[in-house]
Amino acid sequence: MVSYFNEIDKINFAGPDTEKQLAYRYYDANRMVLNKTMAEHLKIAVCYWHSFCWHGGDAFGAATRNLPWEAESNILKRYENKLDAAIEFVTKLGVKYLTFHDIDLAPEGNSPQEYQYNLNHMVDKLGQKLNDNKLQVLWGTANAFSHPRYMSGAATNPNPEIFARAAFQVKNALTATKNLGGLGYVLWGGREGYDTTLNTNIAQELEQLGRFLTLVAEYKHKIGFKGSLYIEPKPCEPTKRQYDFDAATVYALLQKFDLVQEYKLNLEANHATLAGHSFTDEIAYACANNLLGSIDINRGDAQNGWDTDQFPNSVEEMALVLYEIFRHGGLTNGGFNFDAKVRRQSNSLHDMFYAHVGAIDVLAKSLLAAEELIVNKRLSDNISSRYSGWQTSLGSNILQGKVSLEDLAKFVVENNKEVNPPSGQQELCENIVNQAIWKK
Amino acid sequence: MVSYFNEIDKINFAGPDTEKQLAYRYYDANRMVLNKTMAEHLKIAVCYWHSFCWHGGDAFGAATRNLPWEAESNILKRYENKLDAAIEFVTKLGVKYLTFHDIDLAPEGNSPQEYQYNLNHMVDKLGQKLNDNKLQVLWGTANAFSHPRYMSGAATNPNPEIFARAAFQVKNALTATKNLGGLGYVLWGGREGYDTTLNTNIAQELEQLGRFLTLVAEYKHKIGFKGSLYIEPKPCEPTKRQYDFDAATVYALLQKFDLVQEYKLNLEANHATLAGHSFTDEIAYACANNLLGSIDINRGDAQNGWDTDQFPNSVEEMALVLYEIFRHGGLTNGGFNFDAKVRRQSNSLHDMFYAHVGAIDVLAKSLLAAEELIVNKRLSDNISSRYSGWQTSLGSNILQGKVSLEDLAKFVVENNKEVNPPSGQQELCENIVNQAIWKK
Amino acid sequence: MVSYFNEIDKINFAGPDTEKQLAYRYYDANRMVLNKTMAEHLKIAVCYWHSFCWHGGDAFGAATRNLPWEAESNILKRYENKLDAAIEFVTKLGVKYLTFHDIDLAPEGNSPQEYQYNLNHMVDKLGQKLNDNKLQVLWGTANAFSHPRYMSGAATNPNPEIFARAAFQVKNALTATKNLGGLGYVLWGGREGYDTTLNTNIAQELEQLGRFLTLVAEYKHKIGFKGSLYIEPKPCEPTKRQYDFDAATVYALLQKFDLVQEYKLNLEANHATLAGHSFTDEIAYACANNLLGSIDINRGDAQNGWDTDQFPNSVEEMALVLYEIFRHGGLTNGGFNFDAKVRRQSNSLHDMFYAHVGAIDVLAKSLLAAEELIVNKRLSDNISSRYSGWQTSLGSNILQGKVSLEDLAKFVVENNKEVNPPSGQQELCENIVNQAIWKK
Amino acid sequence: MVSYFNEIDKINFAGPDTEKQLAYRYYDANRMVLNKTMAEHLKIAVCYWHSFCWHGGDAFGAATRNLPWEAESNILKRYENKLDAAIEFVTKLGVKYLTFHDIDLAPEGNSPQEYQYNLNHMVDKLGQKLNDNKLQVLWGTANAFSHPRYMSGAATNPNPEIFARAAFQVKNALTATKNLGGLGYVLWGGREGYDTTLNTNIAQELEQLGRFLTLVAEYKHKIGFKGSLYIEPKPCEPTKRQYDFDAATVYALLQKFDLVQEYKLNLEANHATLAGHSFTDEIAYACANNLLGSIDINRGDAQNGWDTDQFPNSVEEMALVLYEIFRHGGLTNGGFNFDAKVRRQSNSLHDMFYAHVGAIDVLAKSLLAAEELIVNKRLSDNISSRYSGWQTSLGSNILQGKVSLEDLAKFVVENNKEVNPPSGQQELCENIVNQAIWKK
Repeated sequence: MVSYFNEIDKINFAGPDTEKQLAYRYYDANRMVLNKTMAEHLKIAVCYWHSFCWHGGDAFGAATRNLPWEAESNILKRYENKLDAAIEFVTKLGVKYLTFHDIDLAPEGNSPQEYQYNLNHMVDKLGQKLNDNKLQVLWGTANAFSHPRYMSGAATNPNPEIFARAAFQVKNALTATKNLGGLGYVLWGGREGYDTTLNTNIAQELEQLGRFLTLVAEYKHKIGFKGSLYIEPKPCEPTKRQYDFDAATVYALLQKFDLVQEYKLNLEANHATLAGHSFTDEIAYACANNLLGSIDINRGDAQNGWDTDQFPNSVEEMALVLYEIFRHGGLTNGGFNFDAKVRRQSNSLHDMFYAHVGAIDVLAKSLLAAEELIVNKRLSDNISSRYSGWQTSLGSNILQGKVSLEDLAKFVVENNKEVNPPSGQQELCENIVNQAIWKK
Repeated sequence: MVSYFNEIDKINFAGPDTEKQLAYRYYDANRMVLNKTMAEHLKIAVCYWHSFCWHGGDAFGAATRNLPWEAESNILKRYENKLDAAIEFVTKLGVKYLTFHDIDLAPEGNSPQEYQYNLNHMVDKLGQKLNDNKLQVLWGTANAFSHPRYMSGAATNPNPEIFARAAFQVKNALTATKNLGGLGYVLWGGREGYDTTLNTNIAQELEQLGRFLTLVAEYKHKIGFKGSLYIEPKPCEPTKRQYDFDAATVYALLQKFDLVQEYKLNLEANHATLAGHSFTDEIAYACANNLLGSIDINRGDAQNGWDTDQFPNSVEEMALVLYEIFRHGGLTNGGFNFDAKVRRQSNSLHDMFYAHVGAIDVLAKSLLAAEELIVNKRLSDNISSRYSGWQTSLGSNILQGKVSLEDLAKFVVENNKEVNPPSGQQELCENIVNQAIWKK
Repeated sequence: MVSYFNEIDKINFAGPDTEKQLAYRYYDANRMVLNKTMAEHLKIAVCYWHSFCWHGGDAFGAATRNLPWEAESNILKRYENKLDAAIEFVTKLGVKYLTFHDIDLAPEGNSPQEYQYNLNHMVDKLGQKLNDNKLQVLWGTANAFSHPRYMSGAATNPNPEIFARAAFQVKNALTATKNLGGLGYVLWGGREGYDTTLNTNIAQELEQLGRFLTLVAEYKHKIGFKGSLYIEPKPCEPTKRQYDFDAATVYALLQKFDLVQEYKLNLEANHATLAGHSFTDEIAYACANNLLGSIDINRGDAQNGWDTDQFPNSVEEMALVLYEIFRHGGLTNGGFNFDAKVRRQSNSLHDMFYAHVGAIDVLAKSLLAAEELIVNKRLSDNISSRYSGWQTSLGSNILQGKVSLEDLAKFVVENNKEVNPPSGQQELCENIVNQAIWKK
Repeated sequence: MVSYFNEIDKINFAGPDTEKQLAYRYYDANRMVLNKTMAEHLKIAVCYWHSFCWHGGDAFGAATRNLPWEAESNILKRYENKLDAAIEFVTKLGVKYLTFHDIDLAPEGNSPQEYQYNLNHMVDKLGQKLNDNKLQVLWGTANAFSHPRYMSGAATNPNPEIFARAAFQVKNALTATKNLGGLGYVLWGGREGYDTTLNTNIAQELEQLGRFLTLVAEYKHKIGFKGSLYIEPKPCEPTKRQYDFDAATVYALLQKFDLVQEYKLNLEANHATLAGHSFTDEIAYACANNLLGSIDINRGDAQNGWDTDQFPNSVEEMALVLYEIFRHGGLTNGGFNFDAKVRRQSNSLHDMFYAHVGAIDVLAKSLLAAEELIVNKRLSDNISSRYSGWQTSLGSNILQGKVSLEDLAKFVVENNKEVNPPSGQQELCENIVNQAIWKK
């Protein structure tokens, strides 16, 4: 088998003091943190599309990346080469998970039949590779947004034949994911939204979307897929506005269609910020409402209003995110998928390595900071103390529904006391977080 | 009774060709539009706080507005004077509705007892004025965010005594609203949110909020208030992030606490834009999910990231909003409340008149454009045609749950046909809207 | 000659009451407005790239537009067909101007020699067409951002050979523009900026940019090009940050390199809003500093943070913009170039017509509103009165530099008077604008 | 003298491993870094207004902070107490600099005469305190934006009497700063801008502003003030748009009025982000154009669109900022002024200490990271190599103006070579930055 990255050795843990660029300073896969290994906590995944399929074009410019696995003219062989490259890459990185769209893995072909043939062919190849290399699929998904037929949506298309076509793809992709032993399956509503209200029947499209999600859940149970189903919120782009705008919007949708038990969220950093949330806020919302499933880990640019899908490089941001996730018990089937791409100017294949290695270390160092915060309990003790009034009889009576509005009004009049609220101590809390980051 | 605006005559409809500034060009209260009068459709309200209480200060500067009704030293008399000013103002404008917070209307006092005494006193005065002038309360509300005791929230405060204090206020304000014959009651969660996740138990606070909303709904039924309860979403400001971020977030919350039947939304233009939505998109979401209750009509500044609460001046924006509202049947108990203030430099009392008159005409002209769009049916016919496939057997079988994912996949394979999607015709639709605006 | 739009008739003025979609309601080319015809004031241009070159792809999806002039396999013949389509389109629209990039017009080829050959060939063809149809080039430009060689900038590239390559293109494109009788030449710094400061020598790159602009200005004079040179500011996209961020940033750059006399600005609506300015504010800044050259007329989406390049559809926005431009005397060599594209879902060739016709009417109606504001002088009289103090001796002494800080301090102490500032009357002013729009 | 912070001991350096909250982990004032002490490099200043004057109110709520130095009823004595508090605070922090507005320091009074009397009185007191405690003024300024007289601007007011009043204040504040041995003087144009173009003569106001800045510079020279003059850009708030929008806009203004030699920039983190820039980008622009003077160090909230003025807590952000500043040689007269306030809920006086101590450590740790990046030269070596082509004859001929556009075009044709651009290596660069932060 040809090597596409033969100048690159396997990346190993070398500790914080190493001078090597392609080594892990903090990511030590087997290091125990909060009762599991780092690798078990993080379930780091490489995505197929950004590293192995994307050519480096943007809206204003042509391809910059030369992908040697694409030199092959036979199309199925070309996709087999791409698979080789992907397996070599994840193996050299030393991570265990992959994520893919159906048409990342296999060529779409010119008919439903060709699509199925190609997909089955490549799933077989991938399955063998996973087995040989002790790798896993974190999740699979179907691309129901790039083909022009989906220009007005997939499940929410004005034409039910296109709804059917999307159903066909999802059925195949979900089956493939199950057959590959995948831990989850993601739906991203890239074109499930609208460009203008003027030509759109929103109520109708929401019904379609609810139906589609229900069909997928039913099918999942029918085939006995044990993994999780995820929805990945995004507010806009490519559409003006998506129906799965953010975690809260999806939560409303799931409740409306009685699907809360069926779907969790695959939250992406850059999607959260495009929706006007910090990633921490979006994660915290999901945790507080028991919605968190998996993470698409990347970053946006605070000044650029599109999905830049950059590799994460902020321990300060990720420490808060991981603290939130792990104090709520961590992920179950979910993991951290690098839905991130190198910059267009990073046109060397080596850049993929720098990008992933740096980002994995950011995750690892952030995990250590989260561990410190969880273990030292400074923040959680402060919170317990701050809300301790809710353990008194007044507080618990309120929460248990034992008092009415009138009871409370009467209490206030009789009590006749002004409360002097204590400091929220935000600055002190922020210092405690920095100390945890600096310590580890 | 002293007049505060004696240089201003009652504002009347004078038609589009008038040269007068203080006259209505389009707002003709009794003109029939879509089977009701303009006044009935719009239920225009003046808010107490911005016009009669606000002194013109901002975060960087002191008061600029001299409010003559505040010259009185006796505090209750001062509030009575303010009431006189408010009644004179709405009467001269020729609108029929008022909105208020409890402590706009009556001084808060130094104890719960004083609060109640003052509120009851002023409610009596207001009730008489409403009666005398054939006016109504569109909705009342309680200010549970300005006093320092609420600095860490009201219903979501870490201290249950403050929850109780807020309950006391809401009970009194809701009772007052009922006694005044108000059509609705609004809850705005100004400080129901957080400044940092680090000191906040979000899950706990959401439970508190759900409980509070439940208590209010129960009390409403107990006292037989027939009006509507509304929640007014806002994403942030004064807090870093509110729990009622936007319509979707509130919808999720209401479903979680089984309150969908109890609350509708009072949507505000400037709050929608702060949350990253066009006002039209936010309204459309509410309409599609049957959540719309009432409107706080104002505008923000597209380049300024805070709640500027300016008077609306765009027919182009409002025509879309009103089209959305009225093609879904219009408001029931709700109306259009001018939650808007003059600019700090507009320090003459006459500016309040210019502001309201201009904005009312914007509403009226927008209503005419919406009528044209509804009556000429160009947009709705286009939508019916665009989605007609959902009337076929394939479409209706899908929506009625008669087919599975596998059925659809089988259909696609057998059908084996590529769909060539028709144009969405967005530009044509936009032209149709402009034509409707220009026509009326 | 084959017709690409044979179902479409020439678009004519039909007045506000027409029911036809493809007719002008307000754009009456020969109507006199402020002493010139509408056509002379607006100099409306169709751009080559969005309508004739763009296939409808976006970052998440493939082409949706089928461009029949691309069916031809011979490459030069294909570009000739495209030219035919462009000429047919502008002729049917009834406008007089075109804009183009070098490689819109002619294929880039595989060497500098081929580039020159192709460009010369197509310029000859275009020149003949312009002559035959009494059309003109509003401005030309060179695309020095799409080819991968420009991935790190053109004039600001770390490699001087790429600077040279950009110089080669601009020389050819500017010469072509001159030979075609173009009224202007635009430089857009698509990749003149950076993705990260970490690998960038900003001071060096600014020197390069200053040099490049100087070379272009020198060459312009050498060949005797009488048209205007323009810089088109944009804050970002595709780069993280461009050096020509906005009008003010370009003004600083031009002053630094002593180029204020050589360049004016080509301001684009969507670029202004991406930079955090309303288009009106950006135009007003340019007018106040005598920088305005020409307009790229389009619109962005207030909620989407990328360059959507939509057709303008707001008279309310454009009336303010045109008022600003025409009260400062209008454009000289500049015009209004529709740097706008149909939505990806608008995949019919008819949509190009709907889009341009609607947008041209928006411009025309806005021009009428601007005329009304200029003629009725309500705003300008108010301003004259508001600033009349600067005509007194105190005001004129200050502006003429006759008094020092100490003189003024002394005046204040001696005068010892508090000023009560009059209302800014913003709401009244806004009403006056709406009245002007509604009147015409 | 009464102590206001008697529970707080002097804050000392205790090293990274300390468990104390009120101790410095990284700020070791006398530690040598890049050939100076930390204290000399950073010149850390505490601002008067946020910590000693602000009561904790916001746009939606009343004061939360109880400031014991305000208990005094005699007004001058009250300001003397405030001075005592300020001196005690900075002394306990162990920093050396203060910043103030005229009316922070002394009460404004009811006439110009009272203003002068009060200011002189307090300047005497402050001078003595500075002397006694070996403290210094980093810069002074005048508040010409809070009083209602300035509602329409100070230097850019439509009324020249208000221009004069502002001149009076600035003369006094600048004289006071000189007399106190201040290192600089700042002008912030809080209301130098507009709320609407409709009532504003922008060109006239820019002339006024240019004149004002000229008068101040002339006066500075006249009185022999050796410190620096600074302008502090801000895009908006309180106005819709300020004339000193950002560094570039100020640079354009200074060039237009020939004031580049007279003014440098006082850049503020939160103002940069409100203007759509990262703070690093804004700093880099200033450094590349030799405009940097001093720093207002704080942070905004990435999701909140107003000036939150939070204490900085990101080493990741500040390391880049300090790297940019110190690789350009650091500040001369300037320093780091904490223009930051505790959150409204941080209503204990202790919070001021937590806030400053945490932020000072962030600065110190960032300085160490910047030192590492400067000393290890990985980034700068990479840049040198990347731009090395500009040292060849082609590059230097271009920059020295020895070649024309035609020469370059000829070179391209003759050379006839395609350039394959090397990777920009952004991800590697980002890793290098993180390694520097993690190392120190």
